Amino acid sequence: MGTKERRVREKKVLRGKILDAARELFVEEGYAAVTMRKIAAAIEYSPTAIYLHFRDKEAVINAICDTDFLKLATRFRKIAEVADPIERLRASGLAYADFALRHPNHYRLMFMTPHPPHSPEESVIEVGNRDQDAYAFVLWTAGEAIAQGRLRPELDDAELVAQIVWSAIHGWVSLRMTKCNEPWVDWRPQKRSIEAVIDVSIRGIARTPPEASPRTTRKGKG
Amino acid sequence: MGTKERRVREKKVLRGKILDAARELFVEEGYAAVTMRKIAAAIEYSPTAIYLHFRDKEAVINAICDTDFLKLATRFRKIAEVADPIERLRASGLAYADFALRHPNHYRLMFMTPHPPHSPEESVIEVGNRDQDAYAFVLWTAGEAIAQGRLRPELDDAELVAQIVWSAIHGWVSLRMTKCNEPWVDWRPQKRSIEAVIDVSIRGIARTPPEASPRTTRKGKG
Repeated sequence: MGTKERRVREKKVLRGKILDAARELFVEEGYAAVTMRKIAAAIEYSPTAIYLHFRDKEAVINAICDTDFLKLATRFRKIAEVADPIERLRASGLAYADFALRHPNHYRLMFMTPHPPHSPEESVIEVGNRDQDAYAFVLWTAGEAIAQGRLRPELDDAELVAQIVWSAIHGWVSLRMTKCNEPWVDWRPQKRSIEAVIDVSIRGIARTPPEASPRTTRKGKG
Repeated sequence: MGTKERRVREKKVLRGKILDAARELFVEEGYAAVTMRKIAAAIEYSPTAIYLHFRDKEAVINAICDTDFLKLATRFRKIAEVADPIERLRASGLAYADFALRHPNHYRLMFMTPHPPHSPEESVIEVGNRDQDAYAFVLWTAGEAIAQGRLRPELDDAELVAQIVWSAIHGWVSLRMTKCNEPWVDWRPQKRSIEAVIDVSIRGIARTPPEASPRTTRKGKG
């Protein structure tokens, strides 16, 4: 391998190390308390070395957001082929919760740690492109469910529907992460509980409760 | 006023100051980063002075949890008289969100900031007493809804029902607090949005969608 290729590869590896260390520090200590110097110290590099990759802390958080939100969008992309928008909504809820449980530090930084907003101008992610923008994926699915008359007629706003479903699943994930040791609460098993949360959301927005559907159809024909 | 009364009053005021300063520090810097010395400095007292009130940082967080969870339970107590358990669930959801928006720092520390669990042994709150324990209030309401046959038959576990409804409302509150400046999301107006979140949860758990109720009854009679 040539010197140039080696340098490109090494640069990429170091960039990944910086992002991983910074993600952990931001989650542990809060965005405000972390400095470029602390990030450098965590990976045993000089501050100068990391300034070669990122001009400041904001560039670091933007790069982490890009990487992590693309990772989530990639999970969603795999379920884009689910044709039924209600079933796609259910699948994306499960994929979202699974992503959170597999990557708790990513999740904490993405959705639970205050930091400067992820600016679309500074991002490699194209806003509204559902292959890249995970929120756009949910918005698209909610919009299809509305267009196909699957939701209660008063829920005609895809943005509101997306925010309702997102709230329920984020609430479940984040309470589990923050309050899991709370002795006041007898937490129910994870799988049963997240499936119930998603099911309740979907029944709550749907025009016809899923299991009542065939009966209604038959009645309509008879 | 006698010297003793003055001392008791002063002690109470100082205790409140310590708790307010500590709550803010825990939320801003994270539980781990805060020391008794920092809390003392925030109110311009010597560390010795605050050790007269609290033996350590854990005693401080326990006292904050007691105060703040009792405050929430007091909000719930006012709606205990709502006889219909479904309407009481709706009212407690609205009261919970209102509490969070009015006392964001309290809320952040209670539900969004990792810290040692609030030990029932160290607490003045009686676990399971719905006048004092806010979670027990929701559990009681969910249990009544189940006992009256108001929920879908598969939702026969009050603990699970309480966790589902709590997740939805906590998710809405906490996303608003953490991601409100996110340019990717077009947040819908607060009032409309929290009412929709609660309505969707209740429709999702209820046996009969509220507005379909009279029709079903008529059909049953005819």
